[in-house]
Amino acid sequence: MNQALLDRVRIVLVNTSHPGNIGGAARAMKNMGLTQLYLVEPRSFPDEEATWRASNATDVLDGAVVVPSVEAAIEGCELVLGTSARERRIPWPLKDPRACAAEIGSSQIKGDIAILFGREDRGLTNEELQMCHLHMHIPTNPEYSSLNLAAAVQVAAYELRMFALNEVIEVNEDAGWDFPLANAADIERMHQHMEATLGRIKFVDPQNPKQVFTRLRRMFARIRMDQMEVNIMRGVFNKIDRFLEKTD
Amino acid sequence: MNQALLDRVRIVLVNTSHPGNIGGAARAMKNMGLTQLYLVEPRSFPDEEATWRASNATDVLDGAVVVPSVEAAIEGCELVLGTSARERRIPWPLKDPRACAAEIGSSQIKGDIAILFGREDRGLTNEELQMCHLHMHIPTNPEYSSLNLAAAVQVAAYELRMFALNEVIEVNEDAGWDFPLANAADIERMHQHMEATLGRIKFVDPQNPKQVFTRLRRMFARIRMDQMEVNIMRGVFNKIDRFLEKTD
Repeated sequence: MNQALLDRVRIVLVNTSHPGNIGGAARAMKNMGLTQLYLVEPRSFPDEEATWRASNATDVLDGAVVVPSVEAAIEGCELVLGTSARERRIPWPLKDPRACAAEIGSSQIKGDIAILFGREDRGLTNEELQMCHLHMHIPTNPEYSSLNLAAAVQVAAYELRMFALNEVIEVNEDAGWDFPLANAADIERMHQHMEATLGRIKFVDPQNPKQVFTRLRRMFARIRMDQMEVNIMRGVFNKIDRFLEKTD
Repeated sequence: MNQALLDRVRIVLVNTSHPGNIGGAARAMKNMGLTQLYLVEPRSFPDEEATWRASNATDVLDGAVVVPSVEAAIEGCELVLGTSARERRIPWPLKDPRACAAEIGSSQIKGDIAILFGREDRGLTNEELQMCHLHMHIPTNPEYSSLNLAAAVQVAAYELRMFALNEVIEVNEDAGWDFPLANAADIERMHQHMEATLGRIKFVDPQNPKQVFTRLRRMFARIRMDQMEVNIMRGVFNKIDRFLEKTD
């Protein structure tokens, strides 16, 4: 049983409307051995309804971290997943909860992992989904695909526990990698730098200025960039910036 | 997708106290494609709270069969499972929900299957558990093992759906991708273009000019780029090249 893996997982609930769902999610987490709950601008918290639905998991509620943004919730995470019920215009790497648990448990990931759960009525925004390396899709009846929020947390947490129970902890599997993985904030800064620089060299499709950035985000999200790789990319943009300054 | 299997599964809730749990169970069932709900002497049904928690699964509630006994609920079933959180004095065949789904889906079973879920506070009685061929145990944190009733139904129904989907674990991972993968020659040309452009902007580590290119090759190799992504990168380098020409 790999409890250390479960300890590194943050469940991030974004703009939850019903406090009962926060309580239900906390209970599901504790039942499955998870502890880290992050709440991005919940409508009402703390709340009696959350406490009631949490049953004996009020310690998870008491430890919940309330933050003002998704960025704050995923700060320092090496891997970010977002739950998604819908097909997106630009497809993103998408796996079911079992395959996601295997990714989360991969020995390459040594730091914290965030799983984002969206609003009850409309899930995560496209911008939030684009902050994710991987989208988790829970297979559902196509005629009724919208899971209750706490039920979705239950399924994800259950698969994590199943993975952690069965895992033979392998020592040293990728001791060979040469740099630590970059965290989410570093990668976000890299994207912002890249978008600014590409804007300055006027690299945009006038028909659809945002699509190219979305594609670049999706492309880099498919690999787990290490810190050196992020530094190289930043270095390239710095160099271009300096050339542009000279020509101004 | 084996919907016929899901159609043969009865979810049996025994002496449920909280009508909200009946609604939550109905919603979980419909999300996962199950339809047969049996209620053994529920404390209150129908009930507004059940309807509210069922959300758009009120058809499952409307079709629920209220019966006076477990015997009536399992009548005609070929296989009966009972959920169990505790160790029993007399050990019984006990499997986790994934293994139970495989048993339920085994081709030997052609008729209906019942899964019994007990009371919120004390589960199924020993007598009820002894009516079962098999006990389902959801792996839980030993310090807090009592799942919410609707959450337990969610986990069991999820495993049944995963089984019915034929254990095809990956949802659409590549089939839905929007562009074909780039071939090796296109990627090689992209690298040569990138190296030429980075050379022109003097982006090289004077100590070790080749290492940075090796790192970039390794990074892009991990992505498995599609053709559009290669085109975007080529477009970026073309744009930089043109800026450099203007300043020559």
